[in-house]
This record gives sequence, structure tokens and C-alpha cells, in this order.
Amino acid sequence: MISSKPVRGTRDILPDEMKIRDHLEQKILEIYRIHGFSRIETPAMENLELLLGSEGGENLKMLFTILKRGEKLELKQDASVLDLCDMGLRFDLTLPLSRFYSNNQEVLESPFKAIQIGNVFRAERPQKGRYRSFKQCDIDIIGDATINAEIELMDTTAKALLAIGLKGFTIKVNHRKLLSAIIQRSGFAPETVGSICICLDKMDKIGVDGVTRELLDKNHDDKAVECLMTCVTDISLENLEQWVEDTEAVDNLTQVINTIKSLAKDNFKVVFDSTLIRGMGYYTGLIFEVSYGPYGSSVAGGGRYDNMIGKYNKVSVPAVGFSIGFERIINILMEEQNDSIEKEKSAILFYDPKTDNFGEVIVRGDVWREKGYIINLMVMKKKFGKQIAACNNGHHQGFMVFGRDEEIKFF
Amino acid sequence: MISSKPVRGTRDILPDEMKIRDHLEQKILEIYRIHGFSRIETPAMENLELLLGSEGGENLKMLFTILKRGEKLELKQDASVLDLCDMGLRFDLTLPLSRFYSNNQEVLESPFKAIQIGNVFRAERPQKGRYRSFKQCDIDIIGDATINAEIELMDTTAKALLAIGLKGFTIKVNHRKLLSAIIQRSGFAPETVGSICICLDKMDKIGVDGVTRELLDKNHDDKAVECLMTCVTDISLENLEQWVEDTEAVDNLTQVINTIKSLAKDNFKVVFDSTLIRGMGYYTGLIFEVSYGPYGSSVAGGGRYDNMIGKYNKVSVPAVGFSIGFERIINILMEEQNDSIEKEKSAILFYDPKTDNFGEVIVRGDVWREKGYIINLMVMKKKFGKQIAACNNGHHQGFMVFGRDEEIKFF
Repeated sequence: MISSKPVRGTRDILPDEMKIRDHLEQKILEIYRIHGFSRIETPAMENLELLLGSEGGENLKMLFTILKRGEKLELKQDASVLDLCDMGLRFDLTLPLSRFYSNNQEVLESPFKAIQIGNVFRAERPQKGRYRSFKQCDIDIIGDATINAEIELMDTTAKALLAIGLKGFTIKVNHRKLLSAIIQRSGFAPETVGSICICLDKMDKIGVDGVTRELLDKNHDDKAVECLMTCVTDISLENLEQWVEDTEAVDNLTQVINTIKSLAKDNFKVVFDSTLIRGMGYYTGLIFEVSYGPYGSSVAGGGRYDNMIGKYNKVSVPAVGFSIGFERIINILMEEQNDSIEKEKSAILFYDPKTDNFGEVIVRGDVWREKGYIINLMVMKKKFGKQIAACNNGHHQGFMVFGRDEEIKFF
Repeated sequence: MISSKPVRGTRDILPDEMKIRDHLEQKILEIYRIHGFSRIETPAMENLELLLGSEGGENLKMLFTILKRGEKLELKQDASVLDLCDMGLRFDLTLPLSRFYSNNQEVLESPFKAIQIGNVFRAERPQKGRYRSFKQCDIDIIGDATINAEIELMDTTAKALLAIGLKGFTIKVNHRKLLSAIIQRSGFAPETVGSICICLDKMDKIGVDGVTRELLDKNHDDKAVECLMTCVTDISLENLEQWVEDTEAVDNLTQVINTIKSLAKDNFKVVFDSTLIRGMGYYTGLIFEVSYGPYGSSVAGGGRYDNMIGKYNKVSVPAVGFSIGFERIINILMEEQNDSIEKEKSAILFYDPKTDNFGEVIVRGDVWREKGYIINLMVMKKKFGKQIAACNNGHHQGFMVFGRDEEIKFF
């Protein structure tokens, strides 16, 4: 007998969860759409060269690649993945969008405001709550170099999160250039910025002491480490200009945070977070992340990636994106037993296959479907009382017996 | 510069088409749901052994397989696909559903009425209108051995097709056992049934003469060929019993067709088609297909597959499925310029980034969003008259200028 388990690191989604997922996805899509974003779709697979040529960071180590077909493969012991495979599954929706924009630019509005909702694939080590196939809900604005694009993305994403019942989240904002400036100003060499960022990214988990220890262990200069740690501890939106000279980055950061603050009212928070990193190598400007709950888990993230589209296009095009991690949201809302979903009108129409004409049973069901009910046809069992009791499981509001009941008997 | 084309045999979906797709998908889902079906989801990839062990027929030659990860591969020249790969992309939704049912049986209702909407992948030779990644909308009833399951699937699928604006289609019905009986009764050996079926499947394209020639070319007995051709030409629902002895199959076929006929009224046709084959090896009973339009192209298909779930399960479970080929439907409806989609209320709110406070612009947009409008914020260009003219492109009903217009100016 063949195993009936789904592939390692993935899972089957059951009807109850699926109903919630569909409902939330539609809500998010609706908020995106009334803000003037348009949905597009790209294939789940992309050419392997495109994926490998991206600045996908850690995600490139987690690619699912697809074996070449049709030709007889030269299977030498030193064959590379490009010898064996020609395609891979997408690891995010940003890279495919950049390709899409270049491929279809002439028929798209400018600026182009895209919605993408779809699954992405990463061969991560399986662990609780992390899947190898998971859904993202992205909005991106392509062709707007001003911070109004960032503001619109944050405003729209925040509204979508509020609409699905997530309250009291925090949007953390940082600027790639700020972080790089701070690190260098502390006395680190420019070529170490990347590895310092990887250490700083652990601040949430191991704190200032842990990061300090790690930097010293790596033989970085004591003074530089001390200076950097003082900076990331003391820096705030108010004293930013003391620490960094890039006034444009400072102005942009300040203006975005203040505008979103004015829109947020008491529904959510916006803060400057000098240690926010975001893994992807392709970000060039403002970066942001939504954290939620007591453990501050990240439920959405994004940033500006002005140089990516230039890889497929004659001219470089400015772009910003914000992605909601759908699986995290679902986990949170299912744990919180969210009841933002209205109970549906749903009833069972029982029939006896021996005596009832099934065509007539269907027509009888349709009468109630036209009244807005979900009608589920079911064969009456011998122990009918027991059967009815079992059907009172929260999925149906009541039942009828064909040829006997004119109205629904509610549980 | 890296190519911006999607992978061979796939395509990007643009905003206008996407809007129609989303609308139709929701309509189909709604019809499925009010008939008591519940949506589930399985991963796009399945274990390769499961896919290869299925009776997927021709589809097994078109598998996309995924390279093993993490381990150093033994690349010998005679390595098989199972040496190199551990997973593959699903080629249909029926096989994953069978696995899903076995994996989750104890928490599912019985009979279980499933909805699946998702993409499947086949490495077909690219040709117009055929894609390597395409969407299917399936409903299946698992655990009902009676023909009421077939009737319910046909009724629900027909209603879904009618709801999205497809009228005048034909449901063709046949029974696997009938076809096998007819072929053997004509004088062919049992072991040739499969290859005879492949020839008969071409009836639509090459006609009776073509099929006859092909069978004779393959050195089949003249008399048997003549007898078979007379049979498939003369056979009808009325004289079925003259040709086949399996009275249960005949009864089932007759009863399903008559019941659906009574439900169809003049909206669509139901016919018996003795040459309907359906490629999949796993069908065991009634098989059906929806054809539409002057070329009779197939837009949906399905059948009973009572033995499949037994492969993953201790006990065999009866099952029937009906799958709508979403891409075909979209092609047809886009060619027919279907206007079943209501025009949305949509307007542009122009602003001047130099003088207007962007936060206030957003709040102004929200006022109209609450009235049910899609509001798209846009920067005013210098040549505003020209810009407005370009925006009158059918996507927006009108516009407002921030700080100037209180009401929408309709185009």
C-alpha cells in the first residue's frame, strides 16, 4: 500500500480551515482591489537561470528544481544543477513580478499597482508552523519613485490586516541605507556590512548581549562593536540626524512613519526599528515588517527594490512591495478562534433512495438554494434519530425530510 | 539581460483576464458550495512513487519531476528518474484527492463531497490554447456507490456552467463496461480492448471511415471491425439491450441520462455516446464529458473510479468526479465577449504630490471606498487634459481632483 501522507513539509487543508482561508483571502483581495490594485498571475515555475541569477539570498539554497525532460541527460558525476534542471519553483512573488512587468510593460498602466495571491515554495527544514509550500498575498507598486508608494502599500496592507480581524499589530520601518551608514560610521569596513547585518538580525532572539558576544567572537574591533551597540540602542526617529548624514533617507523614513501614524489612529502602531534587516539582498531603500502578538512574530514584510526590474528590462524601474504571510495569519486567527465569519445558512435534505425520485429531490433542494441556503442532500439511514444527532455538528443549521417537511427544522 | 518570458508552455495572466477569471471562479465555487460540497486543498507536489504508481495513462509521460535535495546524488549514466527525483507536480486533482481522502478519512463526512480548484501540470507539447500549467475545478463524491452520485455531479456541474454563461452544451455519457462488452462481443480478444479504445477515441476527428481504416491497418479481423462499426453507428439508448448483456450498466446509464434530461429542460442536452472513451485508466463505471460549441470541444469531463482509493486505504471506497477545464471555459467566454460581469464602480482620485498632503488624499479616497467605489490614487500630470483622455479606457467610470471636486465627474 502506498503512503497517503502529503510530501514532507507540506500538508492537506481540511474543509473547515479552507472555508476560513477562502473567506480571508477574499477579504484581503477586496481591500486591495478597492485601493486600485489589479490582480495578475504568473506560473509557479520559472526558468532556473532567472531564479539563480536573482538576489534571493538564503532562498536560493532552498530551491525546488525541475528535471529536464525529453532529452537524454549526460549524467556525469560533476554535473551541476543547471546541467540536470531547467526550471525551478518560485520562492517568492517579487522576482516573478519583476519578470512579468518587463514582459508585459507596454500593456500595463503606469504606475502599475499589482496584486498577487499565490503559493511559493522553499525547501526549508520542516518545523512547526513552517511549510515548504505556503501562500503569500502581495501588493506592489511599480514605476513610482516617491515615498507615496511606500505609504500607499503600508496603508492598504494595514487596512487588509484590520479587515480580517488582526488588531494591535506594529509596523516596523527601517532604511537599508541608514543601517549601512550606521555600521560603517561605527568603524566597520564596508565589505563587512552584510555579515554584520546577519548578526544584527538576531537581535529579536538573542538581545543586545547576544549580538555583542557574537560580533566579538568573530574578532571584530571592540570599539566598533561598542559604538554600533550604543547606536542601535540609543537611536530614535528624533535623534536620527545625529547618527546619519544621508538626509534624504532620514527625511523619507520620518515622513513615511509620521503619515502612517496619522492614518493609524489607535488601530495599530508604526515604529522606527534600526535593527530591522529583512533577508532579501534586493532591497534598496525603505524596508518594513509587521509584527504581531506577544512573541512579535512577523506576519508581513516588504520594501523598495529599485534595481531588480533592470535585470530584465532596458531601463531600471522603481518598485516597492508588501507581502502578507497568509499561513502565519491563518495560524493566529485560528488560534484566536476568530468569529469574523458569519454563520452560513445551511441545511440537510434527507431522502430515501428506494422510494424518492432523485430528480425531484434535487429540484426540492434548488427551491431552498434560491432562498440562499446551502442544501446538502443525504440518504436517510435506518437509525434516523442517531443520524440527525450526529448531523448537529455546527455545520448545518437544520434539516428537512423529502416528502414530509415543508420547512427546515432547526437544530 | 535575462529573458523576461515565462517558462515554455506557460503564460502570464494580465489584469483584465484575471478579473474575469476571479469572477468566474467565485461563481463556480458558489454553485458547488450551495450544493453541499466543501473545498479542500492539497500541495502542488506529490511523492513521485505515488504519481508513477497511478493509472494516469498518457499523463505519466508528461510529469514534471523535482530533483532530490540535500544529499549528494549518485549520477550514474543509467540512473532512473526515481534515483534523481523524489517528487513530481500533480497532473490532475483526482489522484491527490484519493490520497487526501485516505489520509484524512476519519475526520471527513461520509459521503464526502469535495471541491478542488487548483492548477495541474503536464509537460505537453506547447500548442495554441494548451498550457503546461492550467486550472481545473473539480467536484467529487467519495463513499456513494449509487448513481445518485453521478446525477448530483452532473446536475451541479451543469448548473455551474450555466451560471457562468455557457449555454447549449451537451453532456455525453458512456459506461466503461459497455464499451468493453461491445468490443469483445464484436469478436476482438479481451487483451486488445485498450488499443481498440485508443482508435475509437479518434472518432470525433477522423470519423467512422478513418477509424475503420486504422483498425484494418492494424491487422484486426475484418468481420470484427465491421461488426464493431455497425454497433457504434447503430447503438442507441433505446436499443442498448440488444447489444449488451450487462443489464446493470444499461440500467444505470439509462436512468442517469433520463434523470438529467428531466432536470436539463432546454438549457443543455444529455446524450449517450458509445464512442466516448476518456483517457484515464482509472475509470471503472460511468464516464462523461461536456462538449460545447461548433467544434464540440471538451470543456469538462469525469467518471467513476471505484478502485483508486483502495491503493492507499485498507478498504476500497467508491468515488466519482467531474472536472471543469477552466482554461477552455475562459478561452470560450473571452472570445464570446461575455458580459455577465457587472461593471464595477471605479474612479480615479488625482492629486498633486507637491501641494497635497498624501495622508489627506488617502482619507478622501476612503470616503468613496466606503460608498462602494474602487478608488485609484494618481499623480496629476502637466498635460492633464491628455491624461484624463487616456484614463477614459473603460477601466474607470470617472475621476475627481483632490481639493477641487466634491463629486465624481463621470466620463
